[in-house]
Amino acid sequence: MIRYALIVAGGSGKRMGTDIPKQFLELSGKPLLMRSIERFWSFDNSIRIITVLPEDQIIFWGELQKKHSFSIPNIVVAGGPERFYSVKNGLDQVEDDSLVAIHDGVRPLVSSATIKRCFDMARESGNAVPVICPADSIRRVTEQGNIPVNRQYLRIIQTPQVFDSKLIKKAYLQDYSPEFTDDATLLEKTGEVIHLVDGNRENMKITNPGDLAMAEALFKTIF
Amino acid sequence: MIRYALIVAGGSGKRMGTDIPKQFLELSGKPLLMRSIERFWSFDNSIRIITVLPEDQIIFWGELQKKHSFSIPNIVVAGGPERFYSVKNGLDQVEDDSLVAIHDGVRPLVSSATIKRCFDMARESGNAVPVICPADSIRRVTEQGNIPVNRQYLRIIQTPQVFDSKLIKKAYLQDYSPEFTDDATLLEKTGEVIHLVDGNRENMKITNPGDLAMAEALFKTIF
Repeated sequence: MIRYALIVAGGSGKRMGTDIPKQFLELSGKPLLMRSIERFWSFDNSIRIITVLPEDQIIFWGELQKKHSFSIPNIVVAGGPERFYSVKNGLDQVEDDSLVAIHDGVRPLVSSATIKRCFDMARESGNAVPVICPADSIRRVTEQGNIPVNRQYLRIIQTPQVFDSKLIKKAYLQDYSPEFTDDATLLEKTGEVIHLVDGNRENMKITNPGDLAMAEALFKTIF
Repeated sequence: MIRYALIVAGGSGKRMGTDIPKQFLELSGKPLLMRSIERFWSFDNSIRIITVLPEDQIIFWGELQKKHSFSIPNIVVAGGPERFYSVKNGLDQVEDDSLVAIHDGVRPLVSSATIKRCFDMARESGNAVPVICPADSIRRVTEQGNIPVNRQYLRIIQTPQVFDSKLIKKAYLQDYSPEFTDDATLLEKTGEVIHLVDGNRENMKITNPGDLAMAEALFKTIF
């Protein structure tokens, strides 16, 4: 069965407090986006990689690939005004009889074992979402103050979320809504049950400069 | 105002799948418990440190301190059958007009800035609990399957939890209950409102061998 990795990078750089979009910040000498792509290539070098980027970053991405002699083939697709539209544009490049892993461009620490668990479960059940259990106590902030929450039943959601391509394409025929916080949420609106598999604890989303330092340390240890 | 750090280490080693209790596993060449104590000493070298350990580990702890030429003074107290009793035993050594930071012995990556924020808030408001916002989506596992949770109002709880000593000692006069998952939960049973401050993202609790590798990487970067 054909496998795709659809890597979504939508950062404009505002949130990191830098001029450079966060997917282009360097981890061990290469942009995060390249590091994320490398994880899938390392898992399966026949995987088809689709990179979704804001339209005005596509030329820069080409230049970056040259500069770093980055040779992993990836189809580049222009994103939309929301992540929803970016993924939808990427899915247009995906054939029906396949599995597609939708992954954050700023999660370069996903392990091959996590990717494998996701593809295996998705082949069997139509979808797979990697999760880890919270290691710490959790509280909820309310108008009346903050209260303890039973963490036993909570799961922290990661990517890649892997889907039977037909199912996720059908889910993306829905109209956009801000409540679609991830692809799994969108899929379950079509009546599908979401299947959880184990992620890996290092597989963090890099969203601020402190995360980048942490990722740098982890990268050197685990790869 | 006198400051105490009450460092609680109750691990027997079973959970880590090792023979050595997890507080004695080494981080950058020293036991986690020493690394955790060093964080408080580095913040304030007039702080009074109380180490709570299972009774049968106290002699070994003395030997470890000799072996590592560990010279930070710490009063050693024997723990009880549950964390509740261990903290209670430690609090017996704490004078009333003081602030006490209750900290997990296996959280060696707490920053001085986090410790300061906790003591400052506790001096002002009677208690302080360090938290971080979840960076990822969250789902809840239910009997009917797993469902999305709005993470916007959730906070991940860390230690040190810092208290006005009189207030926390009063809270520890309650009978033990398994629902007391942390000291803040116990305090709020006495009617106090819990005050949240910013923790630091690296301040992880080391509970399995994967965490230890991650902590090793982080330790080298941040200290």
